[in-house]
Amino acid sequence: MFPRPFENHLPRRVIFGRGSSGNLANTLTQKDLRRAFVVSDEGVKGAGLVQAFTAPLEAAGLLAGVFTDVAPEPPIDTVDRVAAQIVAAKADTVIALGGGSVMDTAKVASLVAHHGKPAREFVGIGKAGGRGIPTVLIPTTAGTGSEATFVSILTDPESGNKIGVVDPNILADIAIVDPALTDGLPAAVTAAAGMDALVHAIEAYIAKVATPLARGLALEAVKYIGRSLEVVCREPGNRAARDGMAIGSHLAGMAFANSSCCAVHALALPLGGQFHIPHGVITGCFAGEMMRHNAPNCGTAFAELSVALGWGLMQPTDFAARLDTVAKAIGLSARLAQTPVSDEAIATMARDAVAIRRLMDPNPRDVTEADAARMYRAVLA
Amino acid sequence: MFPRPFENHLPRRVIFGRGSSGNLANTLTQKDLRRAFVVSDEGVKGAGLVQAFTAPLEAAGLLAGVFTDVAPEPPIDTVDRVAAQIVAAKADTVIALGGGSVMDTAKVASLVAHHGKPAREFVGIGKAGGRGIPTVLIPTTAGTGSEATFVSILTDPESGNKIGVVDPNILADIAIVDPALTDGLPAAVTAAAGMDALVHAIEAYIAKVATPLARGLALEAVKYIGRSLEVVCREPGNRAARDGMAIGSHLAGMAFANSSCCAVHALALPLGGQFHIPHGVITGCFAGEMMRHNAPNCGTAFAELSVALGWGLMQPTDFAARLDTVAKAIGLSARLAQTPVSDEAIATMARDAVAIRRLMDPNPRDVTEADAARMYRAVLA
Repeated sequence: MFPRPFENHLPRRVIFGRGSSGNLANTLTQKDLRRAFVVSDEGVKGAGLVQAFTAPLEAAGLLAGVFTDVAPEPPIDTVDRVAAQIVAAKADTVIALGGGSVMDTAKVASLVAHHGKPAREFVGIGKAGGRGIPTVLIPTTAGTGSEATFVSILTDPESGNKIGVVDPNILADIAIVDPALTDGLPAAVTAAAGMDALVHAIEAYIAKVATPLARGLALEAVKYIGRSLEVVCREPGNRAARDGMAIGSHLAGMAFANSSCCAVHALALPLGGQFHIPHGVITGCFAGEMMRHNAPNCGTAFAELSVALGWGLMQPTDFAARLDTVAKAIGLSARLAQTPVSDEAIATMARDAVAIRRLMDPNPRDVTEADAARMYRAVLA
Repeated sequence: MFPRPFENHLPRRVIFGRGSSGNLANTLTQKDLRRAFVVSDEGVKGAGLVQAFTAPLEAAGLLAGVFTDVAPEPPIDTVDRVAAQIVAAKADTVIALGGGSVMDTAKVASLVAHHGKPAREFVGIGKAGGRGIPTVLIPTTAGTGSEATFVSILTDPESGNKIGVVDPNILADIAIVDPALTDGLPAAVTAAAGMDALVHAIEAYIAKVATPLARGLALEAVKYIGRSLEVVCREPGNRAARDGMAIGSHLAGMAFANSSCCAVHALALPLGGQFHIPHGVITGCFAGEMMRHNAPNCGTAFAELSVALGWGLMQPTDFAARLDTVAKAIGLSARLAQTPVSDEAIATMARDAVAIRRLMDPNPRDVTEADAARMYRAVLA
């Protein structure tokens, strides 16, 4: 039961509360930050949220610039474009207002702007060489947990491959988790992001490299997610459920950042790269199948998770089946079923997935190419 | 079940592992820190640990100075003395090597040295006005969790009262938790510090102001403490139990810093101030009595804690009784029984304890002066 050596890396300050993001101008001036650059995307802008932040910042004389052109699965050159504007605006703070794509872009843009090197030079593990411009990360979805992590996932525009910047120096200076910002999320985003958070927590808990801190936070995360995910998908106006998903996804982010995601995420990457299906749809649909595979090695963990989720004490295979039920109930399975995938594509994806050792090695049970192909067929058939 | 607004404040980097403190010189140079000032005490020095750190630092040309004169329950003017030496040595890092007294002294000395104001000006909540000189906190006991908190408890040398500096700006830059440093601890220190950690976790979990993060970490903390505390007191050479106490006390520190200690700590302060009994002896001896008092409001929480502690599912009063059993088994009760306290002193302490609202208000059940007096009599008789 006693852990091997580990490190934990955490955001130094987290502000949580419905309406808490309304104090942003004060939060900045208390830290003597005077020139804020806001990074966001068109969806968030269309929902009126960008204006809701930039107007009071401008009124307080704190707004240095705005960029709302972050695309989903952001190409890495977007980071360089954002950084150039941050430098030109002489900004002293980067505010990310959005989902994972926006936050991941802002985290690396803060490095690029500060260190004056192109984003590509930060790709890999531990390449930051020191912190960047101070960041305030404000999620507008409840799922990725990016406001709590030191990982940024970008896309290589040439190959289409996902590439990562992983370094504790990209942890937020301040994370502001305001559930009110998620109240108006479309149902499809709520479901996919929420299921992503659930899978983060489960994989963080069962990973071979899980740290004690990660296990404690993952188990607490699922207490909130278990009581909120299906509710918020049925009742988008349920504020208690929105609050629960906001805190659950945040804790799950902190958990997997200090543990690891596992084989569900390995299966998800090749599929997401090829078919542009939202990440949470994929992880949600594969969770049950993979946990059925993991069941022989996860009896205790699944029992603890199922109790914490509010599902009662479960046998491992029942736990896996319950995950399938959730994915169906919140509409994820139907969305994936619309994607026809050839046998040949499955063989290629299985090989690629098994090759992602950073996600496969921490998985509690080995996954062969044959296992991966079987799971792709089971879920995509 | 959904939380009110809250903030969480965490150390950005935690390094855990048996032997992990042996890399200190590398850890510093990686962050471009070149002039380390080591703060410690005579006990740690006597155990040979100061020399074990200063020799390699000196060999690497990184040692700016050493101060080993921190007394238990450190008077606040010690902080000013340490800070003056830090400034004179032109240090760029403060290394704390010791228990709570040493770490609490170093945390505030870093502020004093950086901001150039006397320690008294930082007493209170949120008075730091920015971070100080970078700190590396290395606990040599498993108990206080000070390496994970933003609280420093000092003593007013005139009144003898405890005074606190509470500000997220005093969080460690790096906490290094190396269980090997606790292997040689005297049995009495092991027991008192370990029980202190258990009470931190319990109070952090049941406090009215507990944040989700704190509850998750507290529950994980007791999983380690429950399986290690009595073992390490019986078998001081049991390394797995030393490891368990190191991680448990660290997580418990992070938990109470983001929640609160409660009424056990309120009862402890007047008694500790007057009779100079080690803090963990007092909290350990009062934990059972106070949890008996709290039982009507803590059924679910005590059940969750007792399961996590490995004690099985317990009724609230059985949980309280089990805490008494632990305090007896590890020798704390016998140590407190040696302290004769008059009825008059009990009346005064009860009044003083109830007046400590910052600890009494978060307690899950109200504690009157009569309650406090009854508990003092029950434990001290």
